[in-house]
Amino acid sequence: MKNIVISGTNMVSEEIAKSLANSLSAELCKPIYKVFPDGESYVRLPCNVKDSKAIVVQSLINPQDKSIIEAILLGDAIKESGAKDQILITPYLAYSRQDKVFLEGEPISIRGILKIFSDYYNILATIEIHKEDSLKFFNKKAINIRPYTYMAEKIGFDSKNIAVLSPDIGAIDRAKILSSYLNCEYDYFIKARDRITGEITMQTKELDVKGKDIIVVDDIISTGGTILKATQILKNQGARNIYVMVSHALLLENAEEKLFSNGVNKIYAANTLPKKSKVDYIDVGPLIAKNLSAYLD
Amino acid sequence: MKNIVISGTNMVSEEIAKSLANSLSAELCKPIYKVFPDGESYVRLPCNVKDSKAIVVQSLINPQDKSIIEAILLGDAIKESGAKDQILITPYLAYSRQDKVFLEGEPISIRGILKIFSDYYNILATIEIHKEDSLKFFNKKAINIRPYTYMAEKIGFDSKNIAVLSPDIGAIDRAKILSSYLNCEYDYFIKARDRITGEITMQTKELDVKGKDIIVVDDIISTGGTILKATQILKNQGARNIYVMVSHALLLENAEEKLFSNGVNKIYAANTLPKKSKVDYIDVGPLIAKNLSAYLD
Repeated sequence: MKNIVISGTNMVSEEIAKSLANSLSAELCKPIYKVFPDGESYVRLPCNVKDSKAIVVQSLINPQDKSIIEAILLGDAIKESGAKDQILITPYLAYSRQDKVFLEGEPISIRGILKIFSDYYNILATIEIHKEDSLKFFNKKAINIRPYTYMAEKIGFDSKNIAVLSPDIGAIDRAKILSSYLNCEYDYFIKARDRITGEITMQTKELDVKGKDIIVVDDIISTGGTILKATQILKNQGARNIYVMVSHALLLENAEEKLFSNGVNKIYAANTLPKKSKVDYIDVGPLIAKNLSAYLD
Repeated sequence: MKNIVISGTNMVSEEIAKSLANSLSAELCKPIYKVFPDGESYVRLPCNVKDSKAIVVQSLINPQDKSIIEAILLGDAIKESGAKDQILITPYLAYSRQDKVFLEGEPISIRGILKIFSDYYNILATIEIHKEDSLKFFNKKAINIRPYTYMAEKIGFDSKNIAVLSPDIGAIDRAKILSSYLNCEYDYFIKARDRITGEITMQTKELDVKGKDIIVVDDIISTGGTILKATQILKNQGARNIYVMVSHALLLENAEEKLFSNGVNKIYAANTLPKKSKVDYIDVGPLIAKNLSAYLD
């Protein structure tokens, strides 16, 4: 059996697929892809995947629904063409924040997406899903790859006076992992709502940030509101440099500009989403290769 | 148990859902629907579907992939909310023309789409799928609704000198059904390729169209190339009026203008797709109701 990496239908997926194939010394296959005049997607594999372990890399970027359906079409094509194993890598797994019913009448969107992928793939790997528990909705083998120590290794922080902060207690394990690797302190922000004004305030639980270089770590930056607030507090309390490290940098609206102009020194992100000009990206191809190796030839 | 019709997330689906609910004297439920800033879809049911037969109407119009994923999200929501039966009506079923592997390495796209719907729905009904045989890819009960006699009844053709033509022999059963209802002749076009010029010519097999009103019937008009050619031939041979009757009027690019300016008198279509200004639409809500009644309370 051979391993073949099939790059998905967007530029983000192409970049990671190329790097993954390189790390695995595997064949790279780039599908023929077009959109018909009526708007339907068309894919075709120009490579022979018969009896192979076929690894489709498709980051579920905007337009997410198109990315999802194309992953289904690629799954059908590799199955039809006789691949022995169908592996799907979704560096960014869309819909993972709708992971429960918040209001009656809602779907669990991530369940829907993972369920339909189960029809076509027997292994799924993703970079840092919002809640790891959601992967139970994929009926086969699912792998959550946490990139934080890998990213820290590639970045090579050399500060002697560094600490890691989580924006809230729910995400504290990410801070723990990173601080353990960097051998430094970690803490989290406590959010409180003022009972009179309704204003939400944040403060670090106990860490004294004065003069320290702080890494704020999270799975995703969306509009950046929480991280902006955290930055302002850290600056007021005398933090020296502020680094933001996330798996997925959506940075919607003007989040990038807002963060940099308010005191963030660097934003580090995995290369799972379309690139923003001032963000430092860490290629996760080699990391995915390492996490997949047990399942490959 | 009660029947609830849930209108899909586009205007085409809303119109049919309203008409279907009316025909069934069923409750109509309009989901709350929005798109998040990052591009993900959100749906929520504002109605109680517990223990009901929940009928989701979602025409898979452009953007097709968004329409498909929203049908999955609605499926998850009605299942989560305790519906006893999940029924999906896709008046227009996208991807049904990629129903086999034409070139090695292709998916059977319609298989992929129907397979994922099988995860959430136990009955699926559609208006005239391109090839009825494709419905085998839906693992539960699937219903293909042929609208031609219903449409003819609503239109009320009163010509004494009418005939039905199919653009090719593959679609001849549509012409047979319609001619049987109208009690008139039918025929089909034979396509031939000139061995020297490569030009494709069309001619009616044996019908003399001179002075006749002709109904050209097909499942779908896309760019309208074949029907345009048919119209020109029919006009040259002295046909009187030319009516086009299809289930699905995509009418891409300038097809509508092209057909009307080249001799087509009327285009009749089911209301399964976004409306074009000069097409006469026949609402298929009551027809769907009739075809579903055996499965409802």
